[in-house]
Amino acid sequence: MTAVDVRAWIAEDLGAGDLTSEAVVPEGARARAVILLKERGVVCGLEPVRAVFEALDPEVAFEQVAADGDETEGEIARLEGDARALLGGERLALNLLGRLSGIATLTRLHVDAVDGTGVTILDTRKTTPGLRALEKYAVRCGGGTNHRLRLDDGVLIKDNHLRLAGSVGAAVELAKGSGAEVEVECESLEEVREALAAGADWLLLDNMSLSRLVEAVALVAGRAKLEASGGITLDNVREVAETGVDFISIGALTHSARAIDVSMEVL
Amino acid sequence: MTAVDVRAWIAEDLGAGDLTSEAVVPEGARARAVILLKERGVVCGLEPVRAVFEALDPEVAFEQVAADGDETEGEIARLEGDARALLGGERLALNLLGRLSGIATLTRLHVDAVDGTGVTILDTRKTTPGLRALEKYAVRCGGGTNHRLRLDDGVLIKDNHLRLAGSVGAAVELAKGSGAEVEVECESLEEVREALAAGADWLLLDNMSLSRLVEAVALVAGRAKLEASGGITLDNVREVAETGVDFISIGALTHSARAIDVSMEVL
Amino acid sequence: MTAVDVRAWIAEDLGAGDLTSEAVVPEGARARAVILLKERGVVCGLEPVRAVFEALDPEVAFEQVAADGDETEGEIARLEGDARALLGGERLALNLLGRLSGIATLTRLHVDAVDGTGVTILDTRKTTPGLRALEKYAVRCGGGTNHRLRLDDGVLIKDNHLRLAGSVGAAVELAKGSGAEVEVECESLEEVREALAAGADWLLLDNMSLSRLVEAVALVAGRAKLEASGGITLDNVREVAETGVDFISIGALTHSARAIDVSMEVL
Amino acid sequence: MTAVDVRAWIAEDLGAGDLTSEAVVPEGARARAVILLKERGVVCGLEPVRAVFEALDPEVAFEQVAADGDETEGEIARLEGDARALLGGERLALNLLGRLSGIATLTRLHVDAVDGTGVTILDTRKTTPGLRALEKYAVRCGGGTNHRLRLDDGVLIKDNHLRLAGSVGAAVELAKGSGAEVEVECESLEEVREALAAGADWLLLDNMSLSRLVEAVALVAGRAKLEASGGITLDNVREVAETGVDFISIGALTHSARAIDVSMEVL
Amino acid sequence: MTAVDVRAWIAEDLGAGDLTSEAVVPEGARARAVILLKERGVVCGLEPVRAVFEALDPEVAFEQVAADGDETEGEIARLEGDARALLGGERLALNLLGRLSGIATLTRLHVDAVDGTGVTILDTRKTTPGLRALEKYAVRCGGGTNHRLRLDDGVLIKDNHLRLAGSVGAAVELAKGSGAEVEVECESLEEVREALAAGADWLLLDNMSLSRLVEAVALVAGRAKLEASGGITLDNVREVAETGVDFISIGALTHSARAIDVSMEVL
Amino acid sequence: MTAVDVRAWIAEDLGAGDLTSEAVVPEGARARAVILLKERGVVCGLEPVRAVFEALDPEVAFEQVAADGDETEGEIARLEGDARALLGGERLALNLLGRLSGIATLTRLHVDAVDGTGVTILDTRKTTPGLRALEKYAVRCGGGTNHRLRLDDGVLIKDNHLRLAGSVGAAVELAKGSGAEVEVECESLEEVREALAAGADWLLLDNMSLSRLVEAVALVAGRAKLEASGGITLDNVREVAETGVDFISIGALTHSARAIDVSMEVL
Repeated sequence: MTAVDVRAWIAEDLGAGDLTSEAVVPEGARARAVILLKERGVVCGLEPVRAVFEALDPEVAFEQVAADGDETEGEIARLEGDARALLGGERLALNLLGRLSGIATLTRLHVDAVDGTGVTILDTRKTTPGLRALEKYAVRCGGGTNHRLRLDDGVLIKDNHLRLAGSVGAAVELAKGSGAEVEVECESLEEVREALAAGADWLLLDNMSLSRLVEAVALVAGRAKLEASGGITLDNVREVAETGVDFISIGALTHSARAIDVSMEVL
Repeated sequence: MTAVDVRAWIAEDLGAGDLTSEAVVPEGARARAVILLKERGVVCGLEPVRAVFEALDPEVAFEQVAADGDETEGEIARLEGDARALLGGERLALNLLGRLSGIATLTRLHVDAVDGTGVTILDTRKTTPGLRALEKYAVRCGGGTNHRLRLDDGVLIKDNHLRLAGSVGAAVELAKGSGAEVEVECESLEEVREALAAGADWLLLDNMSLSRLVEAVALVAGRAKLEASGGITLDNVREVAETGVDFISIGALTHSARAIDVSMEVL
Repeated sequence: MTAVDVRAWIAEDLGAGDLTSEAVVPEGARARAVILLKERGVVCGLEPVRAVFEALDPEVAFEQVAADGDETEGEIARLEGDARALLGGERLALNLLGRLSGIATLTRLHVDAVDGTGVTILDTRKTTPGLRALEKYAVRCGGGTNHRLRLDDGVLIKDNHLRLAGSVGAAVELAKGSGAEVEVECESLEEVREALAAGADWLLLDNMSLSRLVEAVALVAGRAKLEASGGITLDNVREVAETGVDFISIGALTHSARAIDVSMEVL
Repeated sequence: MTAVDVRAWIAEDLGAGDLTSEAVVPEGARARAVILLKERGVVCGLEPVRAVFEALDPEVAFEQVAADGDETEGEIARLEGDARALLGGERLALNLLGRLSGIATLTRLHVDAVDGTGVTILDTRKTTPGLRALEKYAVRCGGGTNHRLRLDDGVLIKDNHLRLAGSVGAAVELAKGSGAEVEVECESLEEVREALAAGADWLLLDNMSLSRLVEAVALVAGRAKLEASGGITLDNVREVAETGVDFISIGALTHSARAIDVSMEVL
Repeated sequence: MTAVDVRAWIAEDLGAGDLTSEAVVPEGARARAVILLKERGVVCGLEPVRAVFEALDPEVAFEQVAADGDETEGEIARLEGDARALLGGERLALNLLGRLSGIATLTRLHVDAVDGTGVTILDTRKTTPGLRALEKYAVRCGGGTNHRLRLDDGVLIKDNHLRLAGSVGAAVELAKGSGAEVEVECESLEEVREALAAGADWLLLDNMSLSRLVEAVALVAGRAKLEASGGITLDNVREVAETGVDFISIGALTHSARAIDVSMEVL
Repeated sequence: MTAVDVRAWIAEDLGAGDLTSEAVVPEGARARAVILLKERGVVCGLEPVRAVFEALDPEVAFEQVAADGDETEGEIARLEGDARALLGGERLALNLLGRLSGIATLTRLHVDAVDGTGVTILDTRKTTPGLRALEKYAVRCGGGTNHRLRLDDGVLIKDNHLRLAGSVGAAVELAKGSGAEVEVECESLEEVREALAAGADWLLLDNMSLSRLVEAVALVAGRAKLEASGGITLDNVREVAETGVDFISIGALTHSARAIDVSMEVL
């Protein structure tokens, strides 16, 4: 359940009105339609799609055939209502479904790829401006887990912070004072040792090779949670998972997912 | 030049404040940073990025090294300002640049692929909710041309309209009455003939094979503008262009572009 | 069909609450009312008016007696619902109806005045900030056609652009490169010749006398579309139409229409 | 001084970008321009116009030549800044100036017409949705006084309230309980007597003839403030003022003012 | 009746979704709940609370047991609807009810304390940013009367204005020119005399002792309305009322009211 | 650092313009002013206050004398700029400072009261709608730590969830599946045992007596984090801290803090 106000998005697509429907479809005409996944994928976004059509026709009947999180193909929803409203909301509805289902599907592929390893697949803050809540929800629909939602959500000390704070030790000490868990980005085993000594609770192992990850897991020996990140794809995600890290975070889940092919057909 | 109000996007990432910077970076500290393309691509989004940092620090110095539309790699901008502001805007700035440059780059690849054929590469309305103006701008930075911006922007009669209007002839006649140019989606040569007879100005040839496109071009013989769409990729775009159509429209430019890898480094 | 979010407008009129209704009308009281055109005109705005009352009372019964685009007088809608909601929305509803019906009515007068000449009456971008979509819709209800909706909607080279671009020829050449149709504002026959030579698709003949318009029509001889603009009123619009231009654009349709007299009466 | 956020209005006109300027005006080019009243009128709206241009170019130099409230003709402001920003803001700036100066000018004409009678010219709530604050400010620039700004601003019992409350006496008694001043709309001398007896502080004499107004003034004899309204134009406003009422309220000031002709010229 | 758009507030609490309900409560489960005042108080806020739950579940059944303005304890509303929607709106609903009922309750205590003195209890502009309309409504529910709602609502000359205008006399004279009632803040009897002489309609007696207030009442002798303000609490409000002032304004009604303890219980 | 868009708040107070300043203060007049804490407290809100004045006068000079988080009295900021802008922003600025400094001050009192016990003072989600980010920031300025910011921020199973999920065991098991830390509200030692057995990471001990808290601490023996909540005031917070719990959360920090007395004085 997310809070979506779709009116601004409708205005973005509708502008001064739908010239084609005004010309071609009689005022007050009614229509039935189905929404279809044209390729197999994990459905995501049916609630905002319902909100789109309800904003254009408060009396629309919207029936879900599938639920968010289902992996399926073909018909996922049926609609009946004002014909101009169905056509006026079609593109926005499909844009939402295509993108969110694309993210859920890509997440599911990664989650399945690490099945049995005990590793948790995380997203990142590399989301589309304006859509973070929905994209994070899509990751959950795909079986992933959300990493930090915002900058207010936890402490994660990255290379840019270290340049400003001086040393890992100094930065971690300052951050521990806030009472929150502290995560530190490490690019070398040296930095891993330093962060561990400073009391970091969680280490982000950035762009490390598989053998380096294995060394890091051995070195840390359970004293902090370990998250691998950087350069991880469907091809290597299982190997990374098998190094023994606890988490793998993947920016591409949200910034580079291909849209799923979705269409609406008036009956 | 686009009108961007970045405050809602900042709030989406910043929430109740940047815990890490508050803990690690002294209040009032200043910093310098560079923004880098980490792979070759067409830059897009420097103006909204400037707006992001100016919203967080009105005194920030933001110097463009590249301009929107440049194809380049490495340093594209330099910043100097309040250290917490630079870190607080970093992720949003990179999310914008990565996505928009991804679209511009993918567009440029298609535009270059049809070089010399006289074909115009068009985008579609398959954009991200909330980002249409910026994504359409990115297509222009990549050398593409914008198709309809909104539903108020022209008449395009698609299959769903035809099901509601009865026949192509009836639909085109109704639409011509509005005084606007009329485009009709055609899936067969039969529909091409019918639309042409009805007086359509522009035909959208949807999901046709190369040989069918050649036939359609011959059949129409310049009496209407022709736009090919559906299933077009970098691999086949030139062949499609060489069939003699005037326009090729590609939804993937905006709905499935991979983000370009961009980073910000504090000096 | 337009996307209207009326809540901000309701807040603008309601502020901290309707003191009169709170004092005079019992909480929970119900009422019936009619909305009336008190002079003959073209109705426009019933959908946003419905949205106003539904936002104040989701259970309101709103029955249209007339439809947008009808030319009529007297009763145009009936309402039944919470009495305070009807009174709280009355002023906003009438303000919308009065203005939009005023625009539709003024447009209809101009459209009727050129009946049989084949000329198309266009609006301009001289609309009220915040109301462009609704005002452009009102022009369509009056039988007019929309010119450019926004600056992203086509190329129109005006005198200010020419001062910055140097010559008409240079400007048109640059603009043709964008692939879009190019319209050029011309104030003399000399400029008409120059624009035509440069390949302009559409000429805006600005503030020309009737005899000058006739000359321009002869000179162009169908090689470009012609739009007359400037100083056109109900008194002279037919004469302008009879010069042979294709379009007449009239800013006053939206910037100076008198509001139609509308009222709501509680029964 | 008013609080204006012009970004939404800029987006309404700019959409996905100014195609003409992008094509014709080099990026980074600078320009100077003047804004001119092309007919004599009362200037209104220079502050929001400044805000429009500053939102598009934070470095713009905007110099007022006239001030809001001045009655003048010709040059009223000078600008220097990014050429695309000047052109991109031109239409919105002129739309604001034309409308607000139109209201201020029409108000001034009415105020001047009653000069010496001691009558105060009031506006009404018949304003454009979204523009009430600016339009009320324009009335003040023209020398008028604002009547109720919103429904929370005072008690005004109109015919629709009376139908729901039963009698004038009952309605006024209820309303006096709120501690606020109470105004009552009266359409006959009978209603004037009734409202006065009930203790109304202020009477709105709606659509009364001149002789009826004179009678009402005599009848009330200073025991309540008197406001005439309905059917008042420049032609009869002085006669109405000379009946002895205290206030004249005129909806046309805001709902039917003709826009003043304003233009911007690039130098 | 107030115009509330609760979607932004829902988003503020819900973010990317309610993790607990997603995990613990089955999708589609339904629930019934009651809302309770856990201490005696004046209820305020049931309409916005209804809007919160309707935004999350358009089909929710929301039944008021008490009405805004009732002084009560225990059950004030019953709900039935989607279980996740009830839990997702709970905190926002209670935050609104607790705060608004706190203001209404504190106002009622002051109103009761001056019962029989004829004094009117006023609020101030010391409200929470974003909540003024609702907080002013809460004061009315508690039996108080609203002072100025905004800066556009009347003239109130305070010490800062006087420092800029020079003298009380000059300031009042300027302000009378606007036709509005003029209130002047006075800190001494000297200033009272000066404001009275200048023609002020209303005097704000700021931070005066009881004996000074008595002197001011005698001095003014009904020639202007008198409002006491500053340092007034439940302990001394009756004594202040008995000095003979007409109004007492109290910032603490809105800026320092304690929230009433409210809870929601799922049945 | 927080992202604040103050324009809507300015409009809420300014409406159609500041009648008093328009009447009394000459256009273009300049002024200097100081902002003062009139009682000792912890300053909070200087950044949004700066934004308020910059929105009204982009050229305003705003100099901080104190910083957010300082405990002080007297002058905290100096301003110089357009006189009408200073007066127009005064009330909003003081409303923000008063409320946020009130929260920071109340938090500091609680933090100081538990000094040396090792206990962390937490806030809750009982914040003002629309102000959560700022109020959470104020808690941090007072030395407190933020508990959940939103419902997306962690799993907290409360009594209402338990009624829907059946048993504590079932609920915790479901929630652990999400990979997040799980907190459970417990009202008895029986529930503490059950939650602990189910694997809860964090227990919220709601409304327990001091002796019950001591028992709970002994029973849990470090196997989960313990948070005390409910009925905690400055009078008993240290006793609660000394029971050995890890956290104390206090809704009153944000829902019932008294505003600090702040004023602005024009020099």
